[in-house]
Amino acid sequence: MPKPEILDPQGKAIVGALPRLGFDAFSGVRQGKRFELTVDGEVNDAVLAQAREAAETLLSNPVIEDVVNVQVVED
Amino acid sequence: MPKPEILDPQGKAIVGALPRLGFDAFSGVRQGKRFELTVDGEVNDAVLAQAREAAETLLSNPVIEDVVNVQVVED
Repeated sequence: MPKPEILDPQGKAIVGALPRLGFDAFSGVRQGKRFELTVDGEVNDAVLAQAREAAETLLSNPVIEDVVNVQVVED
Repeated sequence: MPKPEILDPQGKAIVGALPRLGFDAFSGVRQGKRFELTVDGEVNDAVLAQAREAAETLLSNPVIEDVVNVQVVED
């Protein structure tokens, strides 16, 4: 997700559009990215550590984005 | 997230780049979007239903994207 101090123009546009479309419950919106990494076999600690490092170095831009969550989802 | 039958060129590019950077545990990557909606006050069922409807109609493109998860996160 964009860091709190970074302006998020897409989020601002969405929060302006929501009430015009009848969604009046929300005071703020921020837009970020979500990645699904497929692992063949078991997700052990080493794989999870690799996923965390990839998220922090390759999948996100650490200058402007924070990694919010890395979790295992069974398929 | 992009629907399974939709090609995801960004994901393909990432899955090609991962092993070159030392991340060898992943066989597939798909890239989608993540939104944080701020609610002032309590998140009741009505607000959550509104968030779900917004996710399915405004925040995602239902032709090519699926809503994967709508959940409440305390701040």
